[in-house]
Amino acid sequence: MADTTSITPDFAKQGGLVPAIAQDHKTGEVLMLAYMNEEAWAKTLETGEAHYWSRSRKKLWHKGGTSGHVQKIVSIRIDCDNDTLLLLVDQIGGAACHEGYCSCFYRELKDGACSTCSAYVFDPKEVYK
Amino acid sequence: MADTTSITPDFAKQGGLVPAIAQDHKTGEVLMLAYMNEEAWAKTLETGEAHYWSRSRKKLWHKGGTSGHVQKIVSIRIDCDNDTLLLLVDQIGGAACHEGYCSCFYRELKDGACSTCSAYVFDPKEVYK
Repeated sequence: MADTTSITPDFAKQGGLVPAIAQDHKTGEVLMLAYMNEEAWAKTLETGEAHYWSRSRKKLWHKGGTSGHVQKIVSIRIDCDNDTLLLLVDQIGGAACHEGYCSCFYRELKDGACSTCSAYVFDPKEVYK
Repeated sequence: MADTTSITPDFAKQGGLVPAIAQDHKTGEVLMLAYMNEEAWAKTLETGEAHYWSRSRKKLWHKGGTSGHVQKIVSIRIDCDNDTLLLLVDQIGGAACHEGYCSCFYRELKDGACSTCSAYVFDPKEVYK
C-alpha cells in the first residue's frame, strides 16, 4: 500500500514532470491539466497558488499571473503510484481556460453529438490585451 | 477558437499518447489518470468502455477486464489544445483503484496534514486472486 503519511510526487519517472489536474473544489468541475516540475511543485507549496511548468515556453508558469485568474490551493491529492497530482482549487475569476471558458474541457461528446459543456465566463480579447 | 464540432485527440503531440482523466459522472470524484493511444481511443469509442494503453505492460488495457470494474463511458470531453481527454464514467463496482479505493487519488494533503480522502470499497486480496 502506498505511503499515507506524505505527498511526494515521483518526478524521476516521467523525465522530471508530473501531470497535475486542477479541479474546482466547490463544483467538482475538472478545469485543466498541466505539468509540474520540482520547482513548480515547491512554488505551489510555498505560495498556496498553483504553479506549473510550461512545456511550450519552457519556463515556470504562475497560473493566472497575467489574467489574475490564479488558482488558490484548497488541497492536494496524489494517486496510488505517485505520478499524478490532483489539485482542488478555488479558481479566482471563475475561469481556468484562456479561451474564456470555466474549464479547458468545454467540449463534450455525448450520445453521438458534440456540444459545449462549460460556462463561457469572459471574452479573451478583453482580458489578454 | 478550437473546433467545437468534434473530439479529435492530438496523439502526435506527445509521442502517440494522450492522458485521459476518468471522473465519476454522478459524484464528480476524479478516479484516475491513464494514457490512451489511437488503438485504445478507437476501442473506447467502439465498445463504450474505457480502454487505455498500459505504459508498464506495453499493451492495450481494458480497464476492469480482470476485476470486472469496467468504466462505462457516459461522455467524453477534450481540452482546448486537444491533448488531454476527460472521461465521465459509470465506475462499475464503485472502485477504480487496484488498491481497493474508489479513487486512485485517495491521499490528500490539506491544512498541513495528510489523510485518506476516498472510500475503501474492496480488499484487493479478495479481488485479484
